[in-house]
Amino acid sequence: MQTMEKIILDCDPGHDDAAAIILAAKSPKLQLLGITVVAGNQTLENTLRNALNVVQWLDVDVPVYAGCGQPIVREKVIAGDIHGKTGLDGPVFPPLMRKAQPEHAVNFIIRRLLDSDGDITMVTTGPMTNLAMALRMEPKIAEKIKRIVLMGGAYANGNVTPAAEFNIFADPEAAHICFTAGRPITMIGLDVTRKVLCYPEIVQRMEKVGNRVSALFVSLMGHFCKTQKEIFGWDGGPLHDPVTIASLIDPELVTTKPMNAQIDIRGGQSYGRTNCDFFNYLRLPPTADVAIDIDPARFWDVFEEGLRNYN
Amino acid sequence: MQTMEKIILDCDPGHDDAAAIILAAKSPKLQLLGITVVAGNQTLENTLRNALNVVQWLDVDVPVYAGCGQPIVREKVIAGDIHGKTGLDGPVFPPLMRKAQPEHAVNFIIRRLLDSDGDITMVTTGPMTNLAMALRMEPKIAEKIKRIVLMGGAYANGNVTPAAEFNIFADPEAAHICFTAGRPITMIGLDVTRKVLCYPEIVQRMEKVGNRVSALFVSLMGHFCKTQKEIFGWDGGPLHDPVTIASLIDPELVTTKPMNAQIDIRGGQSYGRTNCDFFNYLRLPPTADVAIDIDPARFWDVFEEGLRNYN
Amino acid sequence: MQTMEKIILDCDPGHDDAAAIILAAKSPKLQLLGITVVAGNQTLENTLRNALNVVQWLDVDVPVYAGCGQPIVREKVIAGDIHGKTGLDGPVFPPLMRKAQPEHAVNFIIRRLLDSDGDITMVTTGPMTNLAMALRMEPKIAEKIKRIVLMGGAYANGNVTPAAEFNIFADPEAAHICFTAGRPITMIGLDVTRKVLCYPEIVQRMEKVGNRVSALFVSLMGHFCKTQKEIFGWDGGPLHDPVTIASLIDPELVTTKPMNAQIDIRGGQSYGRTNCDFFNYLRLPPTADVAIDIDPARFWDVFEEGLRNYN
Amino acid sequence: MQTMEKIILDCDPGHDDAAAIILAAKSPKLQLLGITVVAGNQTLENTLRNALNVVQWLDVDVPVYAGCGQPIVREKVIAGDIHGKTGLDGPVFPPLMRKAQPEHAVNFIIRRLLDSDGDITMVTTGPMTNLAMALRMEPKIAEKIKRIVLMGGAYANGNVTPAAEFNIFADPEAAHICFTAGRPITMIGLDVTRKVLCYPEIVQRMEKVGNRVSALFVSLMGHFCKTQKEIFGWDGGPLHDPVTIASLIDPELVTTKPMNAQIDIRGGQSYGRTNCDFFNYLRLPPTADVAIDIDPARFWDVFEEGLRNYN
Repeated sequence: MQTMEKIILDCDPGHDDAAAIILAAKSPKLQLLGITVVAGNQTLENTLRNALNVVQWLDVDVPVYAGCGQPIVREKVIAGDIHGKTGLDGPVFPPLMRKAQPEHAVNFIIRRLLDSDGDITMVTTGPMTNLAMALRMEPKIAEKIKRIVLMGGAYANGNVTPAAEFNIFADPEAAHICFTAGRPITMIGLDVTRKVLCYPEIVQRMEKVGNRVSALFVSLMGHFCKTQKEIFGWDGGPLHDPVTIASLIDPELVTTKPMNAQIDIRGGQSYGRTNCDFFNYLRLPPTADVAIDIDPARFWDVFEEGLRNYN
Repeated sequence: MQTMEKIILDCDPGHDDAAAIILAAKSPKLQLLGITVVAGNQTLENTLRNALNVVQWLDVDVPVYAGCGQPIVREKVIAGDIHGKTGLDGPVFPPLMRKAQPEHAVNFIIRRLLDSDGDITMVTTGPMTNLAMALRMEPKIAEKIKRIVLMGGAYANGNVTPAAEFNIFADPEAAHICFTAGRPITMIGLDVTRKVLCYPEIVQRMEKVGNRVSALFVSLMGHFCKTQKEIFGWDGGPLHDPVTIASLIDPELVTTKPMNAQIDIRGGQSYGRTNCDFFNYLRLPPTADVAIDIDPARFWDVFEEGLRNYN
Repeated sequence: MQTMEKIILDCDPGHDDAAAIILAAKSPKLQLLGITVVAGNQTLENTLRNALNVVQWLDVDVPVYAGCGQPIVREKVIAGDIHGKTGLDGPVFPPLMRKAQPEHAVNFIIRRLLDSDGDITMVTTGPMTNLAMALRMEPKIAEKIKRIVLMGGAYANGNVTPAAEFNIFADPEAAHICFTAGRPITMIGLDVTRKVLCYPEIVQRMEKVGNRVSALFVSLMGHFCKTQKEIFGWDGGPLHDPVTIASLIDPELVTTKPMNAQIDIRGGQSYGRTNCDFFNYLRLPPTADVAIDIDPARFWDVFEEGLRNYN
Repeated sequence: MQTMEKIILDCDPGHDDAAAIILAAKSPKLQLLGITVVAGNQTLENTLRNALNVVQWLDVDVPVYAGCGQPIVREKVIAGDIHGKTGLDGPVFPPLMRKAQPEHAVNFIIRRLLDSDGDITMVTTGPMTNLAMALRMEPKIAEKIKRIVLMGGAYANGNVTPAAEFNIFADPEAAHICFTAGRPITMIGLDVTRKVLCYPEIVQRMEKVGNRVSALFVSLMGHFCKTQKEIFGWDGGPLHDPVTIASLIDPELVTTKPMNAQIDIRGGQSYGRTNCDFFNYLRLPPTADVAIDIDPARFWDVFEEGLRNYN
């Protein structure tokens, strides 16, 4: 029998973070040890409430920890447009009874990793502030991290500036700390997540699953597709974050290539760019497995199965 | 009757620069007022000799001017591998009788533009040092430039570093000066020139043209394809520079999109990146027409016709 | 009766940090709540042992907390030459019985400040990593900080590079976080500490105090003056860190001027410079009280009195 | 008999540039080959007219050349406050009959240096744009430069930003080009020129010289002292530029020290700083002779003698 992959999910919900939580919390292949929350798509107050609302809706027993409310060095950036005022506009959640754990997310990450056998994968789908802070407070955790899998970055175009993707742009120094921690790291960036487009027909397909979690997904995507239309004129949009979880459930879903990857932390117009040496021009050793392709149809199969896990 | 487009070609031959000269010097649609030479693919000494050798071979009456031998601010960069020791390895040229003009390329550009009716297009296929120096020595030339068409940059990946393309990387400050000169500028970067691949079958096709210029092209490409194979393991390689000239001969060859484009001149790992806001995330006014697509088959038709102009 | 000023001393001993501890731990005007230790003059392992050795020698009841072992963003820098192999070469310490507290320095700073009435002054005499990490983990502590008094920076010349002083250079981003925390901050930089020169005649004067703490100071300074001689050819050297504590004991010792002060975190040759607008050229609001003068004789009086407190 | 020192004076008058011209144009120790003008204290149009007005007033036979009207890379900076609307407010000049030479200053510098025996000292008292452009257009001139003597920079505080002095700040990349040209360079910065204060008693002393050039100086300084009072509240101000010329007339006037000196061209808050390694912390080879002291009384003796040369 296969052992379950132990993960900590660090996120800033966010519609696509919510989809990642949905996928992670009930997968028979994953053991979700905790959810740590960070400011990003919205303020920490909002992302924390959103995470708790989602976990309560899913009715799963996963502890949630509040982490850092701002990036390490740069001024705060919030990506409010797509995700609405609350950061998770769309669903009407019942009164929130769930509470965050009293321990700070950074201390939880340190404690849980130090107590582990080096078998925990850190999955980040927001700015990498919490993990970076943990690495600097207690450098010994580095060797305890099995792998880092992040949604973030792009070797081609960014989505906040021409150079940078939001999760990295929102805390480039945190990403730099994580990318130089010396652990295996899989970067799932816009280069592949832009291929995972959630159009109305996908929403209709997931609606047919017919349980309360698919209903949550449908109401999330209702708002998501609406704002994509309003802001960019598109009928749907890329669902970035759950690709990280899906890639753990189905290891062949995403194609990766080892590359030398470095974060631009200089603070100019390229601030936050993930410079990935696709063609190995620099002749430097690879530092990350960078996702270069994905089978979107296969992703949606994984995702539908993820919703059915709640039957 | 259509008037010929007046151009000055600023280049650093280089195999693909040579192809650009071939295409420009005899086109019935273009009036090549002069060739100005800059260090880049090789030292100025070499690129100047190469330009003179090509012009002599073509037996055309075009003055050649020596320009700047190093970038404005940064230390020198030379791209020697692909182009060989001379910068134009391959052909055996007859003894060189042609001589460069005594006037400095920068002074020629200033004088020629000031004397013009504002109808000269500046085409650059190397580092933009000469044009930038001219703009700073005599700012009045800016309004005399009809348009700048450059081979350089990339909104996706670079080809020297993950961030930067060679012509921009070799003198980012010069590119910055030209991009902020306030004149119409068409950037033809790697995003399209990487689609113009010169494979052996293309060489064979051009060989059939059967004149002495096609013979020059064939011997140039013999070396070019060989080094592509040796360095990258590819059977052919992208022929960047002549796309600029081809786009003037056939204005519908290349598809462009207006974008805000800025050069990273900060000096870190993203030094020399052309940050082009493809999706207009920054909501800034467009500053350049950036090439986003090309029909490669049509390019080769233009090029074959260019060779036949020497019959 | 005057209330004692509550302070937390964050340091990286280091000879002059040791002098600061000596001055702080027994002053009737100060209540030293804890010593938090950071890597800087030496590795965290060494600076922690040095702090414990000094506290044990002084026989004072002050808890010591281990903090961060490396700067937040930049690679580690260690200033080994002046302070010797251990970071506190010179004295022969008895076997070390004191132990650091189990709580991380960053968590101690957060907890102690949150529990306070806003009456604690944070004194830092090393890289500002610990305080900066605390500010980012728990932003609410900012309003609880009465004042930050640091040894660090210079508005004229640095002492690691022409631009930067060691404590700031060793973690510029941490300094940036602290300088932008919005709390009163007093920067005591090289501009004044370079005037506090510890020459052999000073050492002889302190020796006459004749207690076991003056003996510690004498053996510390023996090594300190020796290395100043070897490295720079000077008979003595500046005793930077205790000026912070002395300025709290004797508020008129140091003259300050409000200036706009910003940390250069760009990463080039001026990385870590404290740009202090002495003449207010930028017409920006002042952000720090910057020390511009000191009466060295008065400092040594304060210091001698500090040694006598151990009688 | 001593040979006269050949110099080209590159300047942006400016009151203190005017004082430098006065000192240079009639000194029996100097042969002023030409004055090249650059934008800086005011626009090129203004600085050129000012230079011509001064030369006409002095009735000396020195050719004046117009150079660059803007810095090489950065956006334009003008220092208008001190020097008034024209850049040389104060004197009433007679109608201007003098004309600038038709040759561009950059071309003059190149031509004159190439024609020389390597015996010309380049003196710059404005942004170093012209000399830098010349060095990039014709790198062969470097070996022909005997020495560069500049007014600019500061190893302590700047006077535009906390980091940078005006002449360097106004074109940092130009300074970088000149400082890395590999020729002997003497940097006379604010560290010494701030000691050359022109107070009303100095003006009265010079007035007693009683010729028409002393009258010009008096009317220049009348305005200069007035604006120093209005802007900074000082009775006089530093007369920076003529120290360069005085140091050539009296080689022992200024004390210099060889240092490694580098220009910060990164573009952040330290942009344009001259990082001079006074204490040789970096253990790098010296690249400039940096002025560290001056005898102000001796300077004024030199200057008074300079005025008397017009008797």
